[in-house]
Amino acid sequence: MKKIVLSFFAFTAAAMSFSAAAQFAKPEDAVKYRKAAFTVTASHFGRLGAMAQGKVAFDAKVAAENAEIVANMAKLPWHAFGEGTDTADTKAKPEVWKQNAKFKEAADKLQTESVKLVAATKTGKEDAFKAAFTATAGTCKSCHDDFKNK
Amino acid sequence: MKKIVLSFFAFTAAAMSFSAAAQFAKPEDAVKYRKAAFTVTASHFGRLGAMAQGKVAFDAKVAAENAEIVANMAKLPWHAFGEGTDTADTKAKPEVWKQNAKFKEAADKLQTESVKLVAATKTGKEDAFKAAFTATAGTCKSCHDDFKNK
Repeated sequence: MKKIVLSFFAFTAAAMSFSAAAQFAKPEDAVKYRKAAFTVTASHFGRLGAMAQGKVAFDAKVAAENAEIVANMAKLPWHAFGEGTDTADTKAKPEVWKQNAKFKEAADKLQTESVKLVAATKTGKEDAFKAAFTATAGTCKSCHDDFKNK
Repeated sequence: MKKIVLSFFAFTAAAMSFSAAAQFAKPEDAVKYRKAAFTVTASHFGRLGAMAQGKVAFDAKVAAENAEIVANMAKLPWHAFGEGTDTADTKAKPEVWKQNAKFKEAADKLQTESVKLVAATKTGKEDAFKAAFTATAGTCKSCHDDFKNK
């Protein structure tokens, strides 16, 4: 887990080495980017949800593929919540910036749990998958409750 | 390269094992998903472009991180071009479905070149990076010319 957290910080640090302007020409571009990253994440997480809820039969291989995409996607949106991106067309609450350390912690939790979810799918055990799915979904909900307007 | 191509087909086959309805409730959802995937891809590819064009100093580590994201993202949009997703709010030309084998070939080319781009960034050699970037950018342009309205 330490490795995962470290690699997240490595990624963030790398992203930070660009100036904000080089990353996103306008705040709207950052908002568009992060929304897009969440759209892709939600789609694959939704497929896992259908399996966790028994709407689709559990298939460990398909679950692993989707979980890996979720874990990869979960690294991306955070650098697009830079200063000045709170005024564009966003559902992000001001708390993202006011309580930024707490927001980063929430972002880390998703990443940690989504990596565990990948591992769980690879055991091939449906119960392990369901438990890890629930834990990951909890990090989504918790962060949305605190940092996203409905 | 064979492995890469095979893993793409494995992914596609896995994606196909869901019914279209399970993947995307509505054609609009598929269109939203694939646009989102391209938005994320374009953002990271743009950062590589800034380096390739000398607007940002070449940094092999940062280039590798962005290239890996591009290579991962390049696997995603294609299953969202299913039947019935040609009528929603899309810039996709009818040729996506009329010349579907050619479209899939173009999709494969991006994936192949983006994996080579990752390898090139990992050599740490700027010239290798620039050449691989140009090759990858060529697959974007070629596919857009044939399959995307302006």
